[in-house]
Amino acid sequence: MSLTNASPADAAKSAKSASHLLATLPTSARNNALTAIHAALSQSKDEILAANAQDLALAGKAAENGELSLSIVSRLDLGKKGKWEDMLKGILDVRDLDDPVGKVTLRTRLDDGLDLERVSCPIGVLLIIFEARPEVIANIASLAIKSGNAAILKGGKESTESFIAISKVISAALESTEVPNNAIQLVTTRDVIPQLLDLDQYIDLVIPRGSNELVRYIKSSTKIPVLGHADGLCSIYLEHSVSQEVAVRVIVDSKTSYPAACNSVETLLVEEAALEKLLPPVAQALLENGVSLRCDASSKTALTAKLPAHSSAILQDAEATDFDTEHLSLVLAIKTVSSLTEAVSHINTHGSHHTDVILTSSAPLAEQFMSSVDSAGVFWNASTRMADGMRYGFGTEVGISTNKIHARGPVGLEGLMIYKYKVRGAGHITMEYGEGEGQKPFKHEKLAL
Amino acid sequence: MSLTNASPADAAKSAKSASHLLATLPTSARNNALTAIHAALSQSKDEILAANAQDLALAGKAAENGELSLSIVSRLDLGKKGKWEDMLKGILDVRDLDDPVGKVTLRTRLDDGLDLERVSCPIGVLLIIFEARPEVIANIASLAIKSGNAAILKGGKESTESFIAISKVISAALESTEVPNNAIQLVTTRDVIPQLLDLDQYIDLVIPRGSNELVRYIKSSTKIPVLGHADGLCSIYLEHSVSQEVAVRVIVDSKTSYPAACNSVETLLVEEAALEKLLPPVAQALLENGVSLRCDASSKTALTAKLPAHSSAILQDAEATDFDTEHLSLVLAIKTVSSLTEAVSHINTHGSHHTDVILTSSAPLAEQFMSSVDSAGVFWNASTRMADGMRYGFGTEVGISTNKIHARGPVGLEGLMIYKYKVRGAGHITMEYGEGEGQKPFKHEKLAL
Repeated sequence: MSLTNASPADAAKSAKSASHLLATLPTSARNNALTAIHAALSQSKDEILAANAQDLALAGKAAENGELSLSIVSRLDLGKKGKWEDMLKGILDVRDLDDPVGKVTLRTRLDDGLDLERVSCPIGVLLIIFEARPEVIANIASLAIKSGNAAILKGGKESTESFIAISKVISAALESTEVPNNAIQLVTTRDVIPQLLDLDQYIDLVIPRGSNELVRYIKSSTKIPVLGHADGLCSIYLEHSVSQEVAVRVIVDSKTSYPAACNSVETLLVEEAALEKLLPPVAQALLENGVSLRCDASSKTALTAKLPAHSSAILQDAEATDFDTEHLSLVLAIKTVSSLTEAVSHINTHGSHHTDVILTSSAPLAEQFMSSVDSAGVFWNASTRMADGMRYGFGTEVGISTNKIHARGPVGLEGLMIYKYKVRGAGHITMEYGEGEGQKPFKHEKLAL
Repeated sequence: MSLTNASPADAAKSAKSASHLLATLPTSARNNALTAIHAALSQSKDEILAANAQDLALAGKAAENGELSLSIVSRLDLGKKGKWEDMLKGILDVRDLDDPVGKVTLRTRLDDGLDLERVSCPIGVLLIIFEARPEVIANIASLAIKSGNAAILKGGKESTESFIAISKVISAALESTEVPNNAIQLVTTRDVIPQLLDLDQYIDLVIPRGSNELVRYIKSSTKIPVLGHADGLCSIYLEHSVSQEVAVRVIVDSKTSYPAACNSVETLLVEEAALEKLLPPVAQALLENGVSLRCDASSKTALTAKLPAHSSAILQDAEATDFDTEHLSLVLAIKTVSSLTEAVSHINTHGSHHTDVILTSSAPLAEQFMSSVDSAGVFWNASTRMADGMRYGFGTEVGISTNKIHARGPVGLEGLMIYKYKVRGAGHITMEYGEGEGQKPFKHEKLAL
């Protein structure tokens, strides 16, 4: 890992060149590098926490002056219970995942002595732009090395001293390994992001990890593919046949277990036939959990009739914009729909193609919903918050994508891979194949993987 | 299929809406639509050829005035021997391919009663921009319907009457099927391309089929992902251990079997140790096939010493730009390199990441080359021209991609697919999982596909 003061173009160029070497290293070389980084960081805890203390002191002052929120200051603190240990454990967890490089996904005998093979390989150079949390740098460096990709890292300025300290330790650790130092580069100079976003000849994929605003800015500022999601406007469709218990459990979990998460529910679509019996207990449970309900006219009428006066008094009227807003807080918009078709149409038009749920006891309706909704995650009787790489069993999560190509939904290491086709022949030429005289057909025999 | 005079935004919006319905249709409904299109076109040969004759007449005049090349006029002619039959057969060939929709590629039991499934689904709306050949419209409509994607088609203006005639027939045929008419739209009004390229809220992927200039223009004019390649600068590395027979066969096929193709070789990298014995017979065979050789100093010296005078007299000196140029004609640039490492470095820097070949008898060198070269196709002792969807056995080819994400190399129907995650539960919520008190771990059991 090098801490670069090079120009963005030089940094990206050297990362590209390092990526070509990194792509050829065997599993063991990449894993050994992660072991070395883990050991070096373990031994350097004191100096890194000292650097982190400098960041914290500056941030504390900024918070006193009202220039920084206390929640950001808290996220900077590497010394917080368990954080340092989690960071170190994360490196070994990534090391111990299956190697995503070199997986053969297709093998065809084109003709005798002429075999085609499709094999996974790293994408090349990643640009990862993230915000304050200093432990993210170790996580990202691990993911990049494990997947054989070079990476240029640009972190939030509040963690600069921590990043520099961690980066020096990683850099020294890599010296003893086969992973080239330039494969992981930390860029700390200001205002380089626009320049980096312009370097599509060297950088193959941008991964922004941070706020919606950061992602939106990056998506609108580069021709390089961006892996991520700007919005998480998830919906739940409450159909009348589901049990009250499932409805209450899933909706409360989807809304309240972590309201600031992108996979929290923002819109509840209630089937008319569910207004009277199912919506009231759901609404009551949400209100008891501190959720503000923004209701359309039909749902408000239904709730006012059924809820105790002190509950219905705090119901709010939904504005049209509520159904296009990711509140990221304890606010839920409620809309009445006549049917599954109307629910699906609302979701496909107003949603963000992240994760949407149907609550129903009908398997055919559930299957229809799951095939019709154009989202990365389509769930039946489960919480929106299940949409997560760790919960899906991917071992790690690079991000959640709402893209329609390459990778969609929670993205694990596979999302950092592409493939190449290898053909091994013995002097085979195309002019000998075809339907003309003296020409022969290809065999196209599928071979075992 | 509708022939639209709607604004580009309205066309794209209605295509999006049609795509949501199309994505839910079963295999049989999509296949039946292709059968119906095939039958309708068969019955409408006369009227379509009459429309085609109008295009041909206009194009003929333009050619007389020197405004259009004769090769374009020839490509317009649907009545040319076998063309009409090939077009019709292509529709049934696509129909009979495996359905790419609904393939389950991952299945995990997250917990009892909570299953995760990753299933292939269409991308959504494709924008396909192509040049003159009128039969392409039937091919593209087939690929889109088969893969469950809506498509907006914009063809070259020289084929307007043919496109309109074919499109009317397809549109009428679709009326009797479950495929919505708006799923395939032909845009014929001029100057709509820039507007379409701006509609990233509706259009998910752009596929340009045409000249390098067209692809380059599109890549630089849109935020929508583009599937394709602007350049095909393919190289062959001639290592000294390969047999003369293999060297001559493969290099001649790679250069002369179709010089205008993107998978033809443009640069020959010759190992120093191969200059004296292997290069002369290769050069002689190329010269006999009418290839102009642009040589660096070392290769020219070696050839001048070995070739007969009348051959060496026509050798040309390579300029630096020759190694960065896709000649697309019977021109080959020859450069001497000291080793495989130098060859790989030249290819990774000057190539277009399309298809590159090593000619050698050494398996370790071949494997090193194939893992080090950052290209969609890396071949050992086979012609660059093997890089082709039909030759690879994909049944069809949507295009050849040099992208580093999503799809790389020859792209079949798979390249028009993404996936979604389906989760089927029974009221499962996230708050019950974890390491806290009363929480449980996920099971993450792999299930059979």
